[in-house]
Amino acid sequence: MKVQQLAEIVGGRVVGDSETRIERIADLDQAREGEIAYVDNQKFFEAALDSKASCLIVPRAEQFPSRTLIEVANPKLAFAQIGAVLHPTRREPSIHPTAVVAETADVAPTAYIGPNVCIGEYVSVGEDCVLHPNVVLYDGVTIGNRVILHAGVCIGADGFGYVRHDLGYQKFPQIGTVVIEDEVEIGAYTCVDRAALGRTRIGRGTKLDNMVHVGHNCDIGERVVIAAQTGISGSVVIEDDVVIGGQVGFGDHTRVQKGAVIGSKAGILPGKIVRPGVWWGIPVQPLEKYKLMNFYLNRLADMHEEIKQLRQQVADLAKTRE
Amino acid sequence: MKVQQLAEIVGGRVVGDSETRIERIADLDQAREGEIAYVDNQKFFEAALDSKASCLIVPRAEQFPSRTLIEVANPKLAFAQIGAVLHPTRREPSIHPTAVVAETADVAPTAYIGPNVCIGEYVSVGEDCVLHPNVVLYDGVTIGNRVILHAGVCIGADGFGYVRHDLGYQKFPQIGTVVIEDEVEIGAYTCVDRAALGRTRIGRGTKLDNMVHVGHNCDIGERVVIAAQTGISGSVVIEDDVVIGGQVGFGDHTRVQKGAVIGSKAGILPGKIVRPGVWWGIPVQPLEKYKLMNFYLNRLADMHEEIKQLRQQVADLAKTRE
Amino acid sequence: MKVQQLAEIVGGRVVGDSETRIERIADLDQAREGEIAYVDNQKFFEAALDSKASCLIVPRAEQFPSRTLIEVANPKLAFAQIGAVLHPTRREPSIHPTAVVAETADVAPTAYIGPNVCIGEYVSVGEDCVLHPNVVLYDGVTIGNRVILHAGVCIGADGFGYVRHDLGYQKFPQIGTVVIEDEVEIGAYTCVDRAALGRTRIGRGTKLDNMVHVGHNCDIGERVVIAAQTGISGSVVIEDDVVIGGQVGFGDHTRVQKGAVIGSKAGILPGKIVRPGVWWGIPVQPLEKYKLMNFYLNRLADMHEEIKQLRQQVADLAKTRE
Repeated sequence: MKVQQLAEIVGGRVVGDSETRIERIADLDQAREGEIAYVDNQKFFEAALDSKASCLIVPRAEQFPSRTLIEVANPKLAFAQIGAVLHPTRREPSIHPTAVVAETADVAPTAYIGPNVCIGEYVSVGEDCVLHPNVVLYDGVTIGNRVILHAGVCIGADGFGYVRHDLGYQKFPQIGTVVIEDEVEIGAYTCVDRAALGRTRIGRGTKLDNMVHVGHNCDIGERVVIAAQTGISGSVVIEDDVVIGGQVGFGDHTRVQKGAVIGSKAGILPGKIVRPGVWWGIPVQPLEKYKLMNFYLNRLADMHEEIKQLRQQVADLAKTRE
Repeated sequence: MKVQQLAEIVGGRVVGDSETRIERIADLDQAREGEIAYVDNQKFFEAALDSKASCLIVPRAEQFPSRTLIEVANPKLAFAQIGAVLHPTRREPSIHPTAVVAETADVAPTAYIGPNVCIGEYVSVGEDCVLHPNVVLYDGVTIGNRVILHAGVCIGADGFGYVRHDLGYQKFPQIGTVVIEDEVEIGAYTCVDRAALGRTRIGRGTKLDNMVHVGHNCDIGERVVIAAQTGISGSVVIEDDVVIGGQVGFGDHTRVQKGAVIGSKAGILPGKIVRPGVWWGIPVQPLEKYKLMNFYLNRLADMHEEIKQLRQQVADLAKTRE
Repeated sequence: MKVQQLAEIVGGRVVGDSETRIERIADLDQAREGEIAYVDNQKFFEAALDSKASCLIVPRAEQFPSRTLIEVANPKLAFAQIGAVLHPTRREPSIHPTAVVAETADVAPTAYIGPNVCIGEYVSVGEDCVLHPNVVLYDGVTIGNRVILHAGVCIGADGFGYVRHDLGYQKFPQIGTVVIEDEVEIGAYTCVDRAALGRTRIGRGTKLDNMVHVGHNCDIGERVVIAAQTGISGSVVIEDDVVIGGQVGFGDHTRVQKGAVIGSKAGILPGKIVRPGVWWGIPVQPLEKYKLMNFYLNRLADMHEEIKQLRQQVADLAKTRE
């Protein structure tokens, strides 16, 4: 595509040769002829000046004289948008012959269903979805439109619920369902369990990384981001726009309010309400408090020594008093 | 089924119309005609009175006048048992045509083997097992009766063992096996590695959640419950009836004694013996001690300030003494 | 094979009957006729004397009179090497009929490709590789020689990168690749994501356990060992010979220097440089410091009490001064 066309897609202004042809996106330092790169940080301006890219996406054109440029307010976003055009993730609609799709399943004709994908009874898969190899959709789950499921994503396995009795555990019925809304992307081997009764939900535009566990009856809102290996117990509510790091653990029935950001490896006790703000630690606490605690933890040895000295000094004072 | 029949299954007493037909289980607030719900907590009595369920399972019938009831000591357990009858997890015995089953494997004719399941040489799969899609059983492993393996469960991959030498790592042989006993249920993508020599064991009635890692040569007892993403290093022994939260990590050669409960995210150092009681934290400690430590951790800033003030006061006292 | 042949393979010295035939390796206490075991620890000398193994691999022959022995400096290493000969992990070269291999993929004729493996476009798989069932290789990734990938390993799924905008998240292009070098072994369901731009690398001889997550653009060196469920964010550099425990979490852009050992469950903040030595804790710190901190943490209650007493004593002293 020509620079002019790309600029129009991202609402940018062309400086230089608008007819230049662009085939691929690239890093500043790896870019070659026919490639486009971006720079949004003063730190990389020098690399940008040296870049062999045929076009640069920049915040302010006057800083890069005698180059072909697209000037735009958010170069990284524009780069991503141009990347999506030049390297589409959408696949040719098709159902791979090795996929196993139940007769009662309703798969949109625009969806791509990869090798060895299993789609159970009464499942629905929406428009333009991409299901990579080995995805497993248990019976009755609903997948919205433009959803991307990476290899081995498992939607709708039984939740983990048992009732203890004298001789062992009786399985608690897991007969609910899962709803994955539009524009969700889910990383490899992430599992979203079906509800015991009712439904588990992943809201529109939410992004889950690899190997995330979402327990039964969770309600994850829209535009939530969850990094790899985070585990979410049953009946957790995560409101819209929450950002969650990797390896975080949620006890059951917790609620995370809109505006909350939870750092990696945090642990949230069952039933806790996490309010807006940045949270960190096990158990989770406000970042400022967490930092302060670490500050004092690093002074523990000093504190211990000071107490010892004080004891000695007080004993000395007491002696002189006698 | 009729209320009378269901009551007999759970050993309960019918109050009201024993001929009422029940088709499904449901939540109190979602239930409709033909559905049965349960209540075992005063908190939900009001919801129970409003419920449109055709029958309620309750602890004491007199609290719900003019309703069709099953009165039973443990309503949640009765509900789970009735759910198991109305919504059986057992599948029609069959081997899906896409499953790859070695000729030397011994699969009970009552087992359900789902799509793309791989069963290696000399594997044995017992009566009434349900193997969901993409389960992988490496050569020589043994699966008992009535075992449920969710999507992608991997039994018998090589344990993680190497011997360091001058040029790198020599793989330590992983030629043992795995035994999964009766009534075990294992969540999606959980991995149980084969023993180096000897066997790895998951005891009867034990339940593992999604993405649990069980290393080589572990011996997990009967009726153990392990929540999602917990990782168990090699040669760990977990005795009967232990309960383990999610994202717990076990160092190798640890032993967890019967009667122990380990909280989520706990970390157990190699070789440790975890005695009966409730344990929490990294490294793991008795819950009461863990709570106390957190209590004092929250007072660290105050302690630091008090030491500072004491230092000042002691200095003042010392001055007046001179 | 005969003891003499095995001794030659490991550069050991035979004592006793060099013609004894050995079929299998075994544990000291489980070994029977035709089996070989090893002992390298005084603790097991008694078990060795009782062992029914036909041959023992030992550090010093004179400690085991009247036995057939292979004497060698490192018995465990020799045992592993002999195990590799008697129980080869290499499989008969073949591509299972259920595997899905793109026409443009280049798979060495000596490789074993198991059931339901998916190999994408322009993938390269080297000599003597073993790909267990359900391995997924996305388009364009490169697998070296003698690589072992256990069930469900996923190489080349999209990295986790998005650009926030007013309405949600724009996917950042993930069009780079992954290179897995020679002699790497990767555990079940471990995921190595493709680079956004450029490549993600796993260096020669490196071993990853089950369910490890390696984010986009990571550069993992040679002979690195990483235990199960560890998660590595994007653009992390791990130098050669590093050893990493299970359930460790790495923030993005961290660098781990050669000679570092990181304990299980550690957490490394983004951008951190981990220097040579043993590291532990969240956030990570030198082991000695971590131990000291735990020592003082266990004295927190005492410190709190001592401060209280000091306050009282100082108040008493102040009173007497008046």
